[in-house]
Amino acid sequence: MTDLTPNPSYSLTIRLDLPNHPGTLASVTGAIASVGGSLGQISLIERTLKISRRELEVDANSTEHAEKIVAALRELPHIKILKISDRTFDLHRGGKIHIQSRQPLTSQSDLAMAYTPGVGRICQAIARDPEEVFALTIKSNSVAIVTDGSAVLGLGNLGPKAALPVMEGKAMLFKEFGQIDAFPICLATQDTEKIIETVKNIAPVFGGVNLEDISAPRCFEIEARLRQELDIPVFHDDQHGTAIVSTAALYNALKLVHKSLPEVRIVINGAGAAGCAIGRLLRKAGANHIVMCDSKGIISNNRTNLTPEKQEFAVETSGTLAAAMKGADIFLGVSMPGVVSLEMVQSMASDPIVFAMANPIPEIQPELIQDYVAVMATGRSDYPNQINNVLAFPGVFRGALDCRTATITTNMYLEAAQAIAHLVPPHQLDREHIIPSVFDDRVVTAVSSAVQQAARFDGVARQ
Amino acid sequence: MTDLTPNPSYSLTIRLDLPNHPGTLASVTGAIASVGGSLGQISLIERTLKISRRELEVDANSTEHAEKIVAALRELPHIKILKISDRTFDLHRGGKIHIQSRQPLTSQSDLAMAYTPGVGRICQAIARDPEEVFALTIKSNSVAIVTDGSAVLGLGNLGPKAALPVMEGKAMLFKEFGQIDAFPICLATQDTEKIIETVKNIAPVFGGVNLEDISAPRCFEIEARLRQELDIPVFHDDQHGTAIVSTAALYNALKLVHKSLPEVRIVINGAGAAGCAIGRLLRKAGANHIVMCDSKGIISNNRTNLTPEKQEFAVETSGTLAAAMKGADIFLGVSMPGVVSLEMVQSMASDPIVFAMANPIPEIQPELIQDYVAVMATGRSDYPNQINNVLAFPGVFRGALDCRTATITTNMYLEAAQAIAHLVPPHQLDREHIIPSVFDDRVVTAVSSAVQQAARFDGVARQ
Repeated sequence: MTDLTPNPSYSLTIRLDLPNHPGTLASVTGAIASVGGSLGQISLIERTLKISRRELEVDANSTEHAEKIVAALRELPHIKILKISDRTFDLHRGGKIHIQSRQPLTSQSDLAMAYTPGVGRICQAIARDPEEVFALTIKSNSVAIVTDGSAVLGLGNLGPKAALPVMEGKAMLFKEFGQIDAFPICLATQDTEKIIETVKNIAPVFGGVNLEDISAPRCFEIEARLRQELDIPVFHDDQHGTAIVSTAALYNALKLVHKSLPEVRIVINGAGAAGCAIGRLLRKAGANHIVMCDSKGIISNNRTNLTPEKQEFAVETSGTLAAAMKGADIFLGVSMPGVVSLEMVQSMASDPIVFAMANPIPEIQPELIQDYVAVMATGRSDYPNQINNVLAFPGVFRGALDCRTATITTNMYLEAAQAIAHLVPPHQLDREHIIPSVFDDRVVTAVSSAVQQAARFDGVARQ
Repeated sequence: MTDLTPNPSYSLTIRLDLPNHPGTLASVTGAIASVGGSLGQISLIERTLKISRRELEVDANSTEHAEKIVAALRELPHIKILKISDRTFDLHRGGKIHIQSRQPLTSQSDLAMAYTPGVGRICQAIARDPEEVFALTIKSNSVAIVTDGSAVLGLGNLGPKAALPVMEGKAMLFKEFGQIDAFPICLATQDTEKIIETVKNIAPVFGGVNLEDISAPRCFEIEARLRQELDIPVFHDDQHGTAIVSTAALYNALKLVHKSLPEVRIVINGAGAAGCAIGRLLRKAGANHIVMCDSKGIISNNRTNLTPEKQEFAVETSGTLAAAMKGADIFLGVSMPGVVSLEMVQSMASDPIVFAMANPIPEIQPELIQDYVAVMATGRSDYPNQINNVLAFPGVFRGALDCRTATITTNMYLEAAQAIAHLVPPHQLDREHIIPSVFDDRVVTAVSSAVQQAARFDGVARQ
């Protein structure tokens, strides 16, 4: 695994005492370098006549690699390791979000206004006119992040408790990027009907519902039914967030290789929530040649027992993923780590575009193919061209909440994708920059405006 | 209504321009005083040669009274009213709580640790050992505030949307007083089984459940079933919060009048959630003579169709509330505004104790009987001796979360009540101070310690 790039997701904080004479720090940095660790911040905590106490941040590329780095340090004479901690675990202790009051509560008069008896007048105002709930409560800015833990990242059915750290992370992203107050709802059921009923039952508090990490094909029905039965926007991010950002990135990648969407041959690997949504959106955007693959290879008309969603993409030909990729212009992976080989990429058409978006480990490591592709993208934050849903969902919900749309439309997805693509102007476009950074603060405004414009065009804006 | 005390729950902000010469402000304050308004802050916004622009905070005692104050100002010549706003409504706009990240998200490495790919390792750690959810997520400090909006304050069945401002206020109290992250869950169903199922389905995120403003008798079954079926503490605040604080206040009131709990005659008016819980807890505390009344008068064995909870308190005698109060030592009201008259209070035993806790308007206004009772308490923050659940629930949950109890026991209630009562030492005890202030920062620690001690005594502490 040491051929992978060390990254902050396997980062250690190491506190150690070094004898206070020249060369000891050099021996530490040398030892770390010799096993491929990547040094970040080096702090001097204190220094006495005899020792320097330092704290190092070191990135590894896996748990095993992290252990190897520590072992290398332990072999150094005269170095005393005081504490090793995993920065990712440290950051998660006690959770990543909290609730905060927007008003102080430091006097009887604060209490009498924010709580009883004053709050009674607010309740009565909403009881008289239920629309007032948007003006006088958190509803107008709050989103439920709903999961059943059945498809947590690319890790599988880990259940609701193990899904919670992802949902908390999502809530952070909603806040930081969209100024939206989102709260995790991790369900103790994976039954379609019970999920639908539970979400409907908790809907009064929320202005929108973001479905997350719910496995296919249940996710399709859950989303469709909730969209029908609720009067607030429902958005399955794994489908539409991924589809919007992939489409935006593909618009720009195609500009680089001078190919056109209607003409290119596209292979999508992974026919789950994301794959089907990407396929549908690309068709709406004009793509004509899509071959969808799942773990059994090409989704072909010859196969039986296809779900309705897979049926939508069934083609005449059949074969393996490798067969599908031969001569293809574009590979879009939303599937499993390591299912693509260098040879498969080399069999593609000239100037191939590869989006290997499996999380947390892509279909093929970018390091292996960077010299063979025209454009490469992944789902990871530690490589260039991150296809990250955070480019879409905060702006989509910001726009949906601000114009109080009752529903989300396909036009919104297409307009959002265009808006994201346009944020990379022609003179900045290159193979390592087909999509704006998630930290580009124009993104949320651009997406939100596009969504609101589409809402007005489609006649679903209520404000 | 002008015999009631103006209070901040009907507070106005009035911005006006006054001619800039002596006596004009006096005419304004005089006009407000003449109709019984109570002036708070008076700010000078700006002053020119010709005018002074000021902003006044004025408390009224009702909406009508507020209108009368404004009318009085409008009659003043040369005064120009620029803006009148209702401070309680102003404070509620956009809601009272929000979600905040506990970690910054300003770099790729922040994202790689708090979200993908790093978060995947946290998910896997919890999947391996589900108990880790307490260490690595918000669960250990989060509480669901669950209502169906069927009994909002004393205002009745206003539904889930109109209940939300109360639940947000509650979340503020949880945070400010208990450092607990509580989130409102307002349910779109009032069906007992559906409420139970929904709460069970959303439980994985939460370390505790606070039931709120759910009407009797459904609240009894919902609480009992959830206590049985969930492995986190469930607490119906309208029952047990009210019972704990009433009992604490009663302990101290009895000290003032030198009467003993086993001997006094107690009338409880209101046989809903709060009334039944108060009755049960007072019995556990040693009370022997309780007469419970509902809207039909004394709950008597002669009556038919009593709920099991009412049956618990049925007595041989029957009659009206007025009959029950004759010669009683204590009146505890958790019922309706205005159901007690001065004559009824005058018919009680010597040194009567009256807790008129209906919210937001008490069974009898304190102003009317202050000269005829030994001790008077209400549920309001704008009178002395506020029987406010905020003295109990933050500490109860703080203690329950900290010792990770799976359940809440009656011993916890009794110990919490004792702990609250003991915070008023004998030399400070008087008729206007039988209970600590909600702003007394010893309260949450005292209650939390008492709850943890009881948890260990009862063998339910898991940490």
